[in-house]
Amino acid sequence: MKLLLISNSTNYKEQYLGWCMPLIAEFLKNEKKNILFYPESYDAYTERVQKVFKDFGFKVTSIHKAKCPVEAVNKADVIMVGGGNTFHLVSEIHKYKLIEPVRRKVLEGTPFLGWSAGSNVACPTLRTTNDMPVVMPESFDCFDFVPFQINPHYIDPYPEKINDAIRHGGETRQVRVEEFLAVNQEITVAGLREATALWVENDRITLKGERPMRVLKFGKKPCEIKPGSTFDFALNLR
Amino acid sequence: MKLLLISNSTNYKEQYLGWCMPLIAEFLKNEKKNILFYPESYDAYTERVQKVFKDFGFKVTSIHKAKCPVEAVNKADVIMVGGGNTFHLVSEIHKYKLIEPVRRKVLEGTPFLGWSAGSNVACPTLRTTNDMPVVMPESFDCFDFVPFQINPHYIDPYPEKINDAIRHGGETRQVRVEEFLAVNQEITVAGLREATALWVENDRITLKGERPMRVLKFGKKPCEIKPGSTFDFALNLR
Repeated sequence: MKLLLISNSTNYKEQYLGWCMPLIAEFLKNEKKNILFYPESYDAYTERVQKVFKDFGFKVTSIHKAKCPVEAVNKADVIMVGGGNTFHLVSEIHKYKLIEPVRRKVLEGTPFLGWSAGSNVACPTLRTTNDMPVVMPESFDCFDFVPFQINPHYIDPYPEKINDAIRHGGETRQVRVEEFLAVNQEITVAGLREATALWVENDRITLKGERPMRVLKFGKKPCEIKPGSTFDFALNLR
Repeated sequence: MKLLLISNSTNYKEQYLGWCMPLIAEFLKNEKKNILFYPESYDAYTERVQKVFKDFGFKVTSIHKAKCPVEAVNKADVIMVGGGNTFHLVSEIHKYKLIEPVRRKVLEGTPFLGWSAGSNVACPTLRTTNDMPVVMPESFDCFDFVPFQINPHYIDPYPEKINDAIRHGGETRQVRVEEFLAVNQEITVAGLREATALWVENDRITLKGERPMRVLKFGKKPCEIKPGSTFDFALNLR
């Protein structure tokens, strides 16, 4: 299995897909250049992605243009899922009955990459998304390539000075993840900060990017994994 | 119908339920003093709420202690739902089959009040919550007392200077609500800012608190309703 699970497409005030395109190009350097893309929304989104990928020598085809989405998956060289509203994305994936075809294809070795919502769907379910539940999908189940849940765009509490300025009284991200852990005690959460990604090859995972990843487990003190570290599917260092 | 739908229990660095207890006391001043409470979580939460309400002369009984929750609803003088994780709350409400009993009771005139998630459940569905989908409820449907969706804790974009300090690249709340409107074009969203509440008597709604409310409709420019204004269920001023 070969996965690249990216926290976010774009850093604050940077170009679209700016920070992660070199990483994506490295991930795909020995692969065919045709990518089957699953966009959360349709034409405009796909065109935006196609434009960036074209400069790196890739041809991106959107599944929403395919006559038969399952056949498009079966023929794909690389499968890629973009960000957007996770509930809408998962709702569409179920509607077109793509969970099993994509899962089988990726377990057989077809590279998969995604960012933001596209990384969330690599997990057992969508239950650690930050998005608004704008539609109810048939199920919260996702592709289940990895046994843990990614929380993309993981963000630390703001410093006191900033909180005082914005008078922010809402839950921190860690509190939200703890709510998840309270009712899903057996599942580990990987808090994937901006400009980081998980590079998965078979059962070996490497943290890419410059920031550490926060690992949250029920009843345990959160811990940090350093960038560049290699670990297993239980998020234990190797 | 008599509802008090509160954005948030507690303002930044203030006491628990500090800002809203005088408003709640005013809302309930001609009502019986026994409140049936639906806590998102259990004993500790209930005790915290009981303590505050006791000082104002109210007796709060939690539904999670009732032998038969439906019977407890049928006998209630006042129904109150606290904040917490909306998915967990709605999941439990469906599990105990309380949608219809509570809806009937409140439409018959029993006062209902809620804050945060407790205001969200007064709407047709939970689809404008800010919470993490930690569990999948049987349905996203809620009590449907009002025909619009409340987004509690509505927050405006941070000023540029703050964004630069935190390098915040995520969606603003307005963008998230626009994602909701894109797939729910017929539903209006009430962006209820901190320290505000909707006081509903029959078909007349008054905005309480010191801040305006943001009204978001598909394909229209958002507009603001001033504090103290009275409006109807379509959120048009009267």
